[in-house]
Amino acid sequence: MSKTIELTKELISRQSVTPEDCGCQAIMAEHLSQAGFINETLQIEEVTNLWSLRGQGSPLFVFAGHTDVVPVGDVSKWNSHPFDPVVDGDVLTGRGAADMKGSLAAMVVAVERFVAKHPEHKGTIAFLITSDEEGDAHHGTKAVMDILSDRGIKIDWALVGEPSSTERVGDVIKNGRRGSMLGRLVIHGIQGHVAYPHLAKNPVHMVAPVLAELSTEVWDEGNDYFPATSFQVSNFNSGTGASNVIPGTAEVQFSFRFSTEVTPEQLQSRVRDILDRHALEYELTFDLKGEPFLTDKGALVAAAVQAIKQVNGEEPVLSTAGGTSDGRFIAPTGAQVLELGPVNRTIHQINECVSVRDLDLLTDMYEQILINLLA
Amino acid sequence: MSKTIELTKELISRQSVTPEDCGCQAIMAEHLSQAGFINETLQIEEVTNLWSLRGQGSPLFVFAGHTDVVPVGDVSKWNSHPFDPVVDGDVLTGRGAADMKGSLAAMVVAVERFVAKHPEHKGTIAFLITSDEEGDAHHGTKAVMDILSDRGIKIDWALVGEPSSTERVGDVIKNGRRGSMLGRLVIHGIQGHVAYPHLAKNPVHMVAPVLAELSTEVWDEGNDYFPATSFQVSNFNSGTGASNVIPGTAEVQFSFRFSTEVTPEQLQSRVRDILDRHALEYELTFDLKGEPFLTDKGALVAAAVQAIKQVNGEEPVLSTAGGTSDGRFIAPTGAQVLELGPVNRTIHQINECVSVRDLDLLTDMYEQILINLLA
Repeated sequence: MSKTIELTKELISRQSVTPEDCGCQAIMAEHLSQAGFINETLQIEEVTNLWSLRGQGSPLFVFAGHTDVVPVGDVSKWNSHPFDPVVDGDVLTGRGAADMKGSLAAMVVAVERFVAKHPEHKGTIAFLITSDEEGDAHHGTKAVMDILSDRGIKIDWALVGEPSSTERVGDVIKNGRRGSMLGRLVIHGIQGHVAYPHLAKNPVHMVAPVLAELSTEVWDEGNDYFPATSFQVSNFNSGTGASNVIPGTAEVQFSFRFSTEVTPEQLQSRVRDILDRHALEYELTFDLKGEPFLTDKGALVAAAVQAIKQVNGEEPVLSTAGGTSDGRFIAPTGAQVLELGPVNRTIHQINECVSVRDLDLLTDMYEQILINLLA
Repeated sequence: MSKTIELTKELISRQSVTPEDCGCQAIMAEHLSQAGFINETLQIEEVTNLWSLRGQGSPLFVFAGHTDVVPVGDVSKWNSHPFDPVVDGDVLTGRGAADMKGSLAAMVVAVERFVAKHPEHKGTIAFLITSDEEGDAHHGTKAVMDILSDRGIKIDWALVGEPSSTERVGDVIKNGRRGSMLGRLVIHGIQGHVAYPHLAKNPVHMVAPVLAELSTEVWDEGNDYFPATSFQVSNFNSGTGASNVIPGTAEVQFSFRFSTEVTPEQLQSRVRDILDRHALEYELTFDLKGEPFLTDKGALVAAAVQAIKQVNGEEPVLSTAGGTSDGRFIAPTGAQVLELGPVNRTIHQINECVSVRDLDLLTDMYEQILINLLA
C-alpha cells in the first residue's frame, strides 16, 4: 500500500465532520514539518486552519484544501463504517475518500517526494488547509485570505484539491467557477375564503406569470469558459394547508449560477424589472455566495495540463461547471487558481469512494506540477 | 328575555363541537314533542341526526340545520367563555350563536307559536337536524336523505337555517349554492443540483405557465343566479428546503366554485387540456364536494320574500354566493331549498355573536313563512 493510501486512511479515520478538524491538520503538519515546512495553526472561532510554508520569496505556490467532510447520512446504509476506511481491490471507501482527504494525502506525499529531490526549489510552497469548506465557510479559507492580505502575502498559484475529475483522474480540471447567488421572493396577496375570491388576492396566481418569465429568460449566452447563466427555483411554498383558504403570501427561493458575462447587480436589477412590470407587492432579498472567477491559460494551467499528460497521457478538459469551491476566496486576489482532484462521482453520498490507482496517479501529477513550476 | 334567546343560550352551553351533538337535539325534541311532533333519532356512526314530523301528507316543509359547531380556537382570545353564552345589550356571544344554534332556537319557537295557533295546519312540518355539517358530512344530512329516499319520503320545501344575512337579518337569502370541487395536481420533474441544471427538470418552472393560464382562464360568465366560476390555488409546495437542490416534484391544490353554466366534467377536461398542451408529466385528481343547486322563484321563495317584508319591511336579495351548505344534499331530490338565517359576519371566528333583536325577528320570519305556506 502506497504512502498516499496509508495517509488517506489515517485521515479518513478522523471523524472530522464540518467544522471539526479532529487532528487531521496535525497529522499533515507533522509530515510537512519533517519536510522542512513551518506550520502555523490559525484557529478562528470553531474552525481550525493550517498555514504552512517552505522556501523563500516568489513565486508562491499554494496547495489548498479542507479536512472537514459532510455528514455521513444513514450509517446503516454504508457497506462499511464511513470512518473505518476499507480498501477492496482498487476501491478505497470512506467519508472524505474523494472529497478530499485523498487529495490532501496526495499533496503531502507529492511534496515530500519533491523536496527530497529538490531541496533548493524555487520560490515558496505553502499549504492552506481549512476545516470549514463544507459548512458556512466564514472562518475558513476566506478568513485566512484576510490574514494573508494583512501580512502582505500574495499567492501566485493555488492548486485546490477538489475532486474535479469525472471518469478518470485528470480528465477534467477546473480553471474557474461560476458565481453563485441566492434569492428570496415573498409575494404579498390578501388571504381569504375560496368562496369569496373577490375579497382576496391570490399570491400564487400573481407570481405564476412572473416565474414563467424568470424561468425562460435568457440571462446571457455564457462564453468560451462559462456555460450560460442559470436560474432555478429551489423552493416554493404557499398555502395554509386548508383547501378552502386563499393564501396571503407566497414564498419563492431561487438560485443563480452565473457566468462572467453578467454581474450580480445586473441580475438583481433584471429580476426587479420583471417583478415591477407585473406590479406586484413583494419583498426581494439576495445573498451573493460567490463571484465567478476564471484562471485563463497561463503558467499554472500549462504546468497542470502538461503534468497530467506526462503522468497519464490524458488531455484534460478545462471546465468552470459544477458547484462552488474555496477557490472563490483565493481568485479575487489575482492568484491563478486551478482545481485538480479525483473522480467526483460519489462525493457527499453513501459509500463515498475513490480509486486507489487514481490517488497514486494524483500524487504523481501533483509532484509533476511542482517539478514543472518550481524545480 | 325571549324564549328564542333562552333556548339559544341553552343550546350554546352544550359543547357540541363537530360531530358531537351533546344533547342539543334532545332539548329540541322535547320542545317539538310537546308541540305534537314525533321524533326519531337516526344515529349513524358517530353522528346524531334528528328527524321529527308533525301533520299529514304533502306539502312537506322541512326546517334543516345542524347542532354541531366549529372548534373554538384559542379560548383565551374570547371575551367570554365560548360555551358560556353572554348577552350584553343587543349582542349574544358564544360559539354557535350565529352558526346556527340561534336559528335552531328560532325554528323551534316559531313552530311552537305556529302550531298553537294553527293546530290543523296543512301538510307536514318536519325537522332534519344533524350533528355533522361542519365536519365530513358523510353521516349527516346526506345519509338521512338516503334513508328518506328509501322510505319514499319526498321533501317539497326545505328552509335551511344557515346564517345567510350580511348586515341585517333577512337582507340576503340564499336560493342556491355554487358547486364545489377540489383538485390536486402533482407535477413530476427530475431532482438535481442547481449547479447542473441540464441534468434536472424543474417542476416549478414547468407548472408556472400552466398556473398563469389556469388562473386567468374564463371558465364561464356565470348567469342571472350565479357569479362566474372561480378557480383558486389554495396550496403550492415544492422544494427540499435546501437552496442548492432543484425539486423533483411540485404539488398544487386548487379549488373550483362553479356555476350551473359548467359541469364538473367539463371543468376537469378543460384543466387536463391546458396541462396536456404544456406536455407535462403529471397526476391530477378531483374531489367533487357538491354540485351547484338553484331554487328558482316559486312558492318557497315567494313565501320567504313576503314574510321578510311583512316582519321587517326588508326586500331580501337572492344570492348563490358563499360557501357550501347541507342544502346541496336536499336540492338534488327536487326539493325547493332556501337558506335564511342571521348575519354571518362573525361565524367560525373568535367571539362569534349575533344580534338578540335579529334572532327574535328571525323567529317572526320563520313563523310568518309557515303561515304563508301552511296556515
